[in-house]
Amino acid sequence: MRMKPKYTFTNILGTFYFNEHFDIINSKMFKNLVSSFKKDSKELDKGEQIKKILKALKKREFYKLFYERNMIFSKERIKNSVKADTMIAHAINNILDIEQVTNTLVKDLREWYELYNPELSREVQEHERFVEIITIKNKEDLLKGIGLTNEDSLGTDLQEKDLTPMKSLASSIKQLYELKVHQENYLESLMKEFCPNLNAVAMTIIGAKFIRHAGSLKSLMVMPSSKIQLLGAEKALFRHMKSGAKPPKYGIIFQHPLIQKAEKKMQGKIARALADKISIAVKVDYFRGEFIGDMLYKDVEKKLHNLQ
Amino acid sequence: MRMKPKYTFTNILGTFYFNEHFDIINSKMFKNLVSSFKKDSKELDKGEQIKKILKALKKREFYKLFYERNMIFSKERIKNSVKADTMIAHAINNILDIEQVTNTLVKDLREWYELYNPELSREVQEHERFVEIITIKNKEDLLKGIGLTNEDSLGTDLQEKDLTPMKSLASSIKQLYELKVHQENYLESLMKEFCPNLNAVAMTIIGAKFIRHAGSLKSLMVMPSSKIQLLGAEKALFRHMKSGAKPPKYGIIFQHPLIQKAEKKMQGKIARALADKISIAVKVDYFRGEFIGDMLYKDVEKKLHNLQ
Repeated sequence: MRMKPKYTFTNILGTFYFNEHFDIINSKMFKNLVSSFKKDSKELDKGEQIKKILKALKKREFYKLFYERNMIFSKERIKNSVKADTMIAHAINNILDIEQVTNTLVKDLREWYELYNPELSREVQEHERFVEIITIKNKEDLLKGIGLTNEDSLGTDLQEKDLTPMKSLASSIKQLYELKVHQENYLESLMKEFCPNLNAVAMTIIGAKFIRHAGSLKSLMVMPSSKIQLLGAEKALFRHMKSGAKPPKYGIIFQHPLIQKAEKKMQGKIARALADKISIAVKVDYFRGEFIGDMLYKDVEKKLHNLQ
Repeated sequence: MRMKPKYTFTNILGTFYFNEHFDIINSKMFKNLVSSFKKDSKELDKGEQIKKILKALKKREFYKLFYERNMIFSKERIKNSVKADTMIAHAINNILDIEQVTNTLVKDLREWYELYNPELSREVQEHERFVEIITIKNKEDLLKGIGLTNEDSLGTDLQEKDLTPMKSLASSIKQLYELKVHQENYLESLMKEFCPNLNAVAMTIIGAKFIRHAGSLKSLMVMPSSKIQLLGAEKALFRHMKSGAKPPKYGIIFQHPLIQKAEKKMQGKIARALADKISIAVKVDYFRGEFIGDMLYKDVEKKLHNLQ
């Protein structure tokens, strides 16, 4: 026959029932903690009693249970701690690294290939097109098309074995350009799902840079728009505060096409308008509001149009 | 009927024949200059005559000829100015850049993949193997083999769409590792052809670094072995000279396997012995001597053996 419990105590393991001598007479392991606690809370009002209960819980048998249960909870929390903004930060990080890495390798390729055909490197300034041309097997026709041939080049006549490593390098760089496109598509899909408004107003890459810089969508959400405008210009800001140099007008935001398009003297105004709209977009995204990104973008566009 | 020439003059354009009034009566353009000059040199011994000839050559018609001929010669010289050491410098440059670039990307990959399976990154320290594992399609068996599964991982459960960009990144890195092997093979073939002795004593990569750092095989050839030993440690050397800090014992040479293998207190001695042999190897290579690289390497090996 079951005795009526005198005291109950609830912790991570579940709910325990004690008699008046603080012997455990029953326990409901892993039961919904809150409801149990609420139900029995009147019986737990004496500090003296709690102390005695805690003493009872010091029994060795609980140690292992505590440990196991704690591990399960912790693992669960760690597992769920990865949020979309973490994925966004990793993706944009990788994209920026791929960019930097391809620039390093293209520089190598240009300098190397200039031994063979210095005119091509001078003629084709755009990196991606330059790499593309090197990877083309039969490129004589193409070279003639832009008025260059290897015969009247100032470059050395190199053997095929000396050209092969340059071509391999070019192929690898081309592959990295393709990788960058893949990662950008992935980032865009994340942004569209997780923060469609920010994505529409700030554009994918710049929006992702904002999240990465702020640390999370939440930290970005609580920032005033004036801070958003200067995010990424911390160095210049502190220089201004310390030495009285001219204060910066923009950080990451400066890369935005609408600011790039604006006349120089209007850029500050557009930056402020854009930061305002980004600030709104982030708040709507964080609280899972409707999609108003297109409208916000158009507002800035209109402002740019009116100013010019 | 042809008149007998009174004077002849030879320059970059060829040989010119003049009558006694210094009118040009004939010229052999682009003839072998030296032989023509030698044959006719008796007739050119009077300073007064030469002056008159030079005056005749000031005629405008020669300007264009001079210019054109000069261009052809200059182009030829530029074309032939690329030597094997230039190719070696470019190849080693590219190899070092590929190394640095892959390290950047592997760092990205590790941090990114740790969201999904932090245990794998901890378990597999070697970069290349880590990348290899990520690229394997069905890697459950492999993970079990090293005592890891995704089920009991602390990582987040990610969807395939979030894993794809990591796998693409891994494939690209793998491809860069392959590129590095290609470039290393090319560099080795260059070194074996151009400086087989340096290649044998210093090993391919280190030998190429020496040439790159010195600027050319010739500049390396004229260096004393004490300078070779410190090549690449210039910063530490100047710090020593300026502030009296401890002088450096080695530069690039420190990466050599024989120094790496030696006990710490013996490393200085091995470095000196190695620099001596490298200095000999470079001289033999520069003057196209016999292959004694193996012998030189064995000498250092013997020294290492005797010291330990």
